[in-house]
Amino acid sequence: MYLNAFEMNCAGFQSHALWRHPEDNTPGYKSIDYWIHLAKLLEKGRFDAVFLADVLGVYDVYQGSRDPAIVNGVQVPANDPAFVIPVMASVTKHLGFGLTASTTHEHPYTFARKMSTLDHLTNGRIGWNVVTSYLNSAAKNIGLAQQTSHDERYARAEEYMEVVYKLWETSWEEDAVVVNKEKGIYTDPSKVHDIDHDGKYFSVPGNHLCEPSPQRTPVIFQAGASSKGRKFAANHAELVFISSTSAEKTKNIVAAFRQEIVQSGRPADDVKVIAAITPITAPTTEEAQAKYEYYKRYISRDGAFALVGGWTGVDLSKVDPDEKVEYIENDAMRSILKGFAGMTPNEIADEVALGGLGPVIVGDPYQIADELEYWMDYADVDGFNIVYSITPGSFEDFVELVVPVLQERGLVRKEYEEGTFRKKLFGNDQLTKSHPAKQVGRAIVTS
Amino acid sequence: MYLNAFEMNCAGFQSHALWRHPEDNTPGYKSIDYWIHLAKLLEKGRFDAVFLADVLGVYDVYQGSRDPAIVNGVQVPANDPAFVIPVMASVTKHLGFGLTASTTHEHPYTFARKMSTLDHLTNGRIGWNVVTSYLNSAAKNIGLAQQTSHDERYARAEEYMEVVYKLWETSWEEDAVVVNKEKGIYTDPSKVHDIDHDGKYFSVPGNHLCEPSPQRTPVIFQAGASSKGRKFAANHAELVFISSTSAEKTKNIVAAFRQEIVQSGRPADDVKVIAAITPITAPTTEEAQAKYEYYKRYISRDGAFALVGGWTGVDLSKVDPDEKVEYIENDAMRSILKGFAGMTPNEIADEVALGGLGPVIVGDPYQIADELEYWMDYADVDGFNIVYSITPGSFEDFVELVVPVLQERGLVRKEYEEGTFRKKLFGNDQLTKSHPAKQVGRAIVTS
Repeated sequence: MYLNAFEMNCAGFQSHALWRHPEDNTPGYKSIDYWIHLAKLLEKGRFDAVFLADVLGVYDVYQGSRDPAIVNGVQVPANDPAFVIPVMASVTKHLGFGLTASTTHEHPYTFARKMSTLDHLTNGRIGWNVVTSYLNSAAKNIGLAQQTSHDERYARAEEYMEVVYKLWETSWEEDAVVVNKEKGIYTDPSKVHDIDHDGKYFSVPGNHLCEPSPQRTPVIFQAGASSKGRKFAANHAELVFISSTSAEKTKNIVAAFRQEIVQSGRPADDVKVIAAITPITAPTTEEAQAKYEYYKRYISRDGAFALVGGWTGVDLSKVDPDEKVEYIENDAMRSILKGFAGMTPNEIADEVALGGLGPVIVGDPYQIADELEYWMDYADVDGFNIVYSITPGSFEDFVELVVPVLQERGLVRKEYEEGTFRKKLFGNDQLTKSHPAKQVGRAIVTS
Repeated sequence: MYLNAFEMNCAGFQSHALWRHPEDNTPGYKSIDYWIHLAKLLEKGRFDAVFLADVLGVYDVYQGSRDPAIVNGVQVPANDPAFVIPVMASVTKHLGFGLTASTTHEHPYTFARKMSTLDHLTNGRIGWNVVTSYLNSAAKNIGLAQQTSHDERYARAEEYMEVVYKLWETSWEEDAVVVNKEKGIYTDPSKVHDIDHDGKYFSVPGNHLCEPSPQRTPVIFQAGASSKGRKFAANHAELVFISSTSAEKTKNIVAAFRQEIVQSGRPADDVKVIAAITPITAPTTEEAQAKYEYYKRYISRDGAFALVGGWTGVDLSKVDPDEKVEYIENDAMRSILKGFAGMTPNEIADEVALGGLGPVIVGDPYQIADELEYWMDYADVDGFNIVYSITPGSFEDFVELVVPVLQERGLVRKEYEEGTFRKKLFGNDQLTKSHPAKQVGRAIVTS
């Protein structure tokens, strides 16, 4: 069972506004100590990775204002997620890291160096959640009048991938760096290559700046829910996130997606599919239920509406809160809305306020383990993105109470295997030939 | 005496090609352990800061090729410097960090978030070395046909500063974030402001994403040697680097610069001026001299020429190696060349190969301390950028041997003062009113 901790370097991530809970330490996000504690905890719980979400704007669609997001601490204030990774890496040996970064906000030439640096520093434990960005509030601050169209974003993302693959996979041969002190050769220049990329969106004639890192290309994550997003994921991703409210919906999405992977020419087991889930647990069912009720006291519908406004682009303040909404398929509609069809705004808010889109599961550790097993079997997922209600309390509960049960059942490792993040997931440090990263430019590397 | 360690996240920084020395650990730069060792060492030596240089391209002017740089490990391969800062911060409490970042390569909106994040994580220990970039090999890889003109770069840099100052200084009031669990207010939205920036190069209408960090604006470093660069430094910098071959040249540069600060309307003591220097020391004079001779065995003229080619844009392979070069003042000439006037290419290479532009000083710990004292008095500098010959050996020598002497003489602190990087330097966490950062947009913050 693959286990990811779902986090973000910001005020309130997916549960609004549970920072009001007396035991919550959300404001700690700014400090090194917060991330050291979390990393040690997750490695103790034998998690595969911590996944760091990110947005580069504020949620300002609901009520036509950013105020509901600011008051409720809905992913604002927010710091850059990349810098907590070296901190967490310095106190762990095995935990992987998934960094969200958009193909819209940073040039692929500098971004490739950033990820290679992190792969070196973490000794091959870095993953990249590829996003194409959705917030107009982010776009306008980097000089774009508004977010470019969905299709254009994915076309640009495809070329972006081509550039970074060329830099990571083809620019430096595996044995280019020799550090021969006798002969005075640090690097053999015949083994460093220009990538000569000249495309529609990017021109990168030169070589990558970094020597090959343990994984070269980071483990590729993707979470796009649109048909374009799914196709992109089927081509590139090694780990895909599903966020859906029920096991049945998830089962259908997963089945369709696994077909798409095969259609794209990759073996089905080249991709792991994981579902977002919010476990609330305690030693007994009654205590878990009481904890759930206590959490619900802090739910903020305004916070949830602010979040949904950013996700969907739809301002639910303009709709009767108790009237069911419909989903009309058209280009302007974001596919995330489909999941809300037939619900009233208030139902949507209550669904989303605790843990975001994924289901909340409540119970003693055995019940939680049963539920996770059920989801794996029924919906055919490979594991979970664990969403917290309060931080770090929800992760502490999961590690202390649920992980030992999963270990007893042989579902979670008792000790880590050695090797990079990809090696632990798929058995190889670097991508295999079926992946498009290995098909760009000249293939000078054999793995 | 201000003490900076001069470093870079790359193969060979300023001494070429001393990675050949048996005790050198240059290839360690890729690992967390290297930076943890260095940070602990520098904090033990009561250094003010570690300064991280950066370039985003390869040195490919000499011989019209990047090969000499690649063979000799001249700042290539190179990783991103920003990510070693959180690692070093996690094992220190007082050491400051100076990060080099160009106003050409990253949008100010995302860059501001990056620096605020680092200022939060380091608890107010971050500095920013503002550069405008000089390598065509970097420019062409981010989609620019070639590096924009010197003047244009500085004009753009001025507006860049305006944008980041607005984000750091005016967007969030000091008491905006309240985390009021009772009332359910994370942040008071009336205290978060749009910056409404609409300029020639950048349009940033929105608010900063991060809450106020301890220093808000990082401590501003600058090293530009041109007249534009000096003017920029006089306006913005709090810490200025001088790299010159003699105490006399340095004295003249410092005097002219201190005048320029006052002319720009800032108190002279708002800026500290430090000089690059390469100390080679051992318990006795004889041992120090022997160490120096041993280091010189590894000097690579090709490596030095590669470096000089990148700095100056001039390919010295086209010039008789033993004929003196002239400096002709014109727009295309970079001011760094002025320092080489009257030297032959071979003399330039020997000058630069060990420690770059600054002087090499050789002696026992007392002689080194004498020489540093002399420079401070004669050239009126506030301290030094300590350049290594081998890493981390040169820093170990300095910390173990020279720092105790400087402490005995009352020139270097025995214990750190409390507080942020700026507090230790100037007595305040944040910039004072005489700095241009406090004059942008509406001044909602009083310090």
